[in-house]
Amino acid sequence: MNEILGGGGFHHIALSTKDIDASIKFYTEILGFKETISWGEGKKRIVMLDSGDNSCLELFADGVDIMPEGVFKHVALRTKDVRKVFERVKNADVTIITEPKDVVLSDTNATIAFFKGLDGEIIELFQNN
Amino acid sequence: MNEILGGGGFHHIALSTKDIDASIKFYTEILGFKETISWGEGKKRIVMLDSGDNSCLELFADGVDIMPEGVFKHVALRTKDVRKVFERVKNADVTIITEPKDVVLSDTNATIAFFKGLDGEIIELFQNN
Repeated sequence: MNEILGGGGFHHIALSTKDIDASIKFYTEILGFKETISWGEGKKRIVMLDSGDNSCLELFADGVDIMPEGVFKHVALRTKDVRKVFERVKNADVTIITEPKDVVLSDTNATIAFFKGLDGEIIELFQNN
Repeated sequence: MNEILGGGGFHHIALSTKDIDASIKFYTEILGFKETISWGEGKKRIVMLDSGDNSCLELFADGVDIMPEGVFKHVALRTKDVRKVFERVKNADVTIITEPKDVVLSDTNATIAFFKGLDGEIIELFQNN
């Protein structure tokens, strides 16, 4: 609980896409996100996809090309089984960066993997062990 | 609940910082985040800050200058009171983008505000009404 925010957590992370329908298909069919609300049309279309705990990816249809990494380097999705999810991702149109591996981060044991999505966004799969 | 991921939600969002101590100070003192784990030294230092529900900002000390917006456009923090939090933010070393305003997104009533943090990261404050 974050006393200053009153709650806390990420309500959403905004992602630019150049083909919003392809991105909706990827995040829903391959990664199990669920569309909640949407508004706007054409290049101004915006769609919220629930990642599983009410935190959403907010897809914008305003992407024009492969976009740079930017100040936000990557987003890590919480999963119970990185290796199982990674098998789904490998068969999709993404670029693998790091195959699943076990790591120790300070006192935390985790399994992680990285890939680059349809618009160059770097997504990490993160499993606490 | 995301059946494919097994759980879901964002474990963390990675942010490049050019002065990681200044960024830790901003997110903890102004926005109520709490440091959890850290590892590495110098430009390879990494610090996890819990946003309030176990979802973290992962600060990297590798930032070199003001970085571009990138494919991830912004991150929205869940709060119960945008206007109250915004008063704290206004007094910090940030650039205001949008003062608090009430909006309707599809069927969702919300209050939102935007500012740019120490490294050019765009942060939204998001309150469901």
